[in-house]
Amino acid sequence: MTEKYAIGLIGLAVMGENLVLNMAGKGFRVAVYNRTVSKVDELLERTRHLPVGGAHSIPELLDMLERPRKIMLMVKAGAPVDSMLQELLPHLEAGDIVIDGGNSFFEDTRRRVQEMTAQGIRFLGMGVSGGEEGALKGPSLMPGGEKAAYEEVAPLFTAIAAQVEDGPCCAYVGPDGAGHYVKMVHNGIEYGDMELISEAYYIMKHVLGLTAKELHTVFAEWNRGVLDSYLIEITRDIFAKLDEETGKPLVEVILDKAGQKGTGKWTSQSALDLGVATPTITEAVFARCMSAYKAERLQAAGILPGPGKTYAGDKQQFIQAIHDALYASKICSYAQGFALLKAASEEYHWSLNFGEIALLWRGGCIIRAQFLDRIKESYEQQPELANLLLAPYFTDALTAAQGNWRLVVKTCAELGVPVPAFSASLAYYDSYRQAVLPANLIQAQRDYFGAHTYERVDKKGIYHTDWLK
Amino acid sequence: MTEKYAIGLIGLAVMGENLVLNMAGKGFRVAVYNRTVSKVDELLERTRHLPVGGAHSIPELLDMLERPRKIMLMVKAGAPVDSMLQELLPHLEAGDIVIDGGNSFFEDTRRRVQEMTAQGIRFLGMGVSGGEEGALKGPSLMPGGEKAAYEEVAPLFTAIAAQVEDGPCCAYVGPDGAGHYVKMVHNGIEYGDMELISEAYYIMKHVLGLTAKELHTVFAEWNRGVLDSYLIEITRDIFAKLDEETGKPLVEVILDKAGQKGTGKWTSQSALDLGVATPTITEAVFARCMSAYKAERLQAAGILPGPGKTYAGDKQQFIQAIHDALYASKICSYAQGFALLKAASEEYHWSLNFGEIALLWRGGCIIRAQFLDRIKESYEQQPELANLLLAPYFTDALTAAQGNWRLVVKTCAELGVPVPAFSASLAYYDSYRQAVLPANLIQAQRDYFGAHTYERVDKKGIYHTDWLK
Repeated sequence: MTEKYAIGLIGLAVMGENLVLNMAGKGFRVAVYNRTVSKVDELLERTRHLPVGGAHSIPELLDMLERPRKIMLMVKAGAPVDSMLQELLPHLEAGDIVIDGGNSFFEDTRRRVQEMTAQGIRFLGMGVSGGEEGALKGPSLMPGGEKAAYEEVAPLFTAIAAQVEDGPCCAYVGPDGAGHYVKMVHNGIEYGDMELISEAYYIMKHVLGLTAKELHTVFAEWNRGVLDSYLIEITRDIFAKLDEETGKPLVEVILDKAGQKGTGKWTSQSALDLGVATPTITEAVFARCMSAYKAERLQAAGILPGPGKTYAGDKQQFIQAIHDALYASKICSYAQGFALLKAASEEYHWSLNFGEIALLWRGGCIIRAQFLDRIKESYEQQPELANLLLAPYFTDALTAAQGNWRLVVKTCAELGVPVPAFSASLAYYDSYRQAVLPANLIQAQRDYFGAHTYERVDKKGIYHTDWLK
Repeated sequence: MTEKYAIGLIGLAVMGENLVLNMAGKGFRVAVYNRTVSKVDELLERTRHLPVGGAHSIPELLDMLERPRKIMLMVKAGAPVDSMLQELLPHLEAGDIVIDGGNSFFEDTRRRVQEMTAQGIRFLGMGVSGGEEGALKGPSLMPGGEKAAYEEVAPLFTAIAAQVEDGPCCAYVGPDGAGHYVKMVHNGIEYGDMELISEAYYIMKHVLGLTAKELHTVFAEWNRGVLDSYLIEITRDIFAKLDEETGKPLVEVILDKAGQKGTGKWTSQSALDLGVATPTITEAVFARCMSAYKAERLQAAGILPGPGKTYAGDKQQFIQAIHDALYASKICSYAQGFALLKAASEEYHWSLNFGEIALLWRGGCIIRAQFLDRIKESYEQQPELANLLLAPYFTDALTAAQGNWRLVVKTCAELGVPVPAFSASLAYYDSYRQAVLPANLIQAQRDYFGAHTYERVDKKGIYHTDWLK
């Protein structure tokens, strides 16, 4: 009798392939299948020293697996997942576990959990972050679905996940779509982080005139302080990389046109559905949209006037101010992301553990940073914390940073430098701390033209006024 | 033989009822039906002098109508529309025209047009704006669907619509969901306008210390200039209204907690889907979300520090600066709304006429304003205009306003006053006019951690770099 395999993996694009290498490298027997079967043979060729088996069909793959079978899908999110599930279903048995490791939309995962459960199949939606390298060396894993099913695959996934001081970056997140939701918010926060770093870069380059070499030095220094993170680290390295062809800093020959599709956008759309303000994350998505109108911008640059971009003050002090603006804005961005998780947890009855989620992101993934330990600690101290801004550590950080943060936003408004995420973060902070906002006027207007009624400050009840009387 | 009725209207909530009074007042014979039939009898009682007929069942209603029958639904958007269509269907004949006048989601309208067409029924989705008063005295109407079907009902709807110098505020918008889409964007822009006015109010009240009486005077003055509009006009009147109970200005006893559901949110979500930046509108939606966290804000107000809110400069000059900031931000908000319409027109093949849409909003609806004439003219001059900011009239307006606009955003950042929509508008302007944005760094990061590839500034093609080499 041939020895069976612990898990089957379908979909050998770069993420799938690297997960296989990771699993097999840790000693797990993995059987693989890919629709273009030459990919299977190529991988087998490259992994002769590893416990990897290959199948040329789905029935063959399923025959190779221990029972109950565990099958991980690493196929493109959307329709391909559904069509693969349809292909799999006739060959599955009750109790088999299917794990979707793609960037699926959480509502799809919620639906699939229901559909598969109705067929006796256990379905997990697992967020996987860390890009190619993470998949290979240890990703951050965010599994959601039936808890008992997760427990059967936990030994494998905790072994292949990134490991940090406090343990592996893999833990059960919650029922049905919770894992993919948390991954989605991770990506929304990633959009925010990348935009904030880009705004800092933009000011330093266009206002202060820093060279790529100087920017490398600044980010290297920032990576030794509170901003210490994977994204700051790679930004540091990016500024040191030269283009082989022109000899210029590579970043300067890259076109300023970024894509946005999927998870960042979904985060903002879900925030709108749940009534949670996520302006920093949403401005990051919009900034990518603006970047994509390159031709229009080139035209507009010749038409729309603005002030000059020179800063008269001290350069080193202003670099520190930009650092503080980035840090404070980052705190607001994470506060928005966690406020969204809180609202989703209530809406979908997921009982998310926010401190544990911060820990999941501590290693392996794109937003990994020391900073997440502070978030974890804040939620450990106050599991019912309404908003991260109210955690003492972050209140203190914002108090210290806000003078410089205001200076940067103010200066950029004055000099015509676009900092949509810095300024949206500041407006978020300043809105959140107002006992009174001007929404009373909005309620008056709505009652005036649409009889939408209003509440009063001095007594309970719903009121309507005939404003024309 | 009894004389038949020109149209049947189902749903006698305030909007439906007022449309009936409007139609009948213009001499059109209207038959009505409502699920709670007592509403039918009450309306008949009140309209003895008008050509209104009542039915106690759907078959009875349909029997009363001229052929092909025209039935307008004024029921709640969402499932109630579908269930009413299911009730209607067995009694309809090929060629009958059903008009949905609710705030339906445009994707629902697109689906319903298909479903109804398959049954031989002609379906129009019609945006109706203007609130209670508009419905009664002349709303703005945005019909979409089959053009030939619209033409059969055009005499009635153009007659009951608001009339402005250039004609009625009713014209065919485009196929399937186009009418409801345009209404949705109207509402998104309405959210933007209301938020911008509220920010102006907030600064004048909390920074300059203006009383309601003084605010009344300011808005009265503003309503005589470029800001002249329905919303500025009612804001003026709102500040003059006293609370009967306390004698205080009524706006000051209204709770600062606004609702957001539906069309404003959908506008932002659609913008995200289509990759169009609408930061002003989206910040307006988020501002309502922030207003709803009243309890959290009260807590935060005692915890999160900020600077004092006193402005040292000249009060009258600063009021003028706020005026200019409001005007410039409003231009950006409309530019975003029309950019969204342009993208939707391309995506859904609607061939929207932007100048005509501006005209539809010129009267009857909530955002009606002289300002819309300038938009209409801009699109008449350049039907292919990429963005309203590039129309000479608006470029000039922004050029004149920008110094003051920057002063306001800068001062608010300094004083800790939240102006999310003012500052998002400025960031939109400043982003749009940059030939170069920092998205090259974002592309470098994405290529670094995810091999997402990038384009170059100096030659065509798609590139990837091994950044670790």
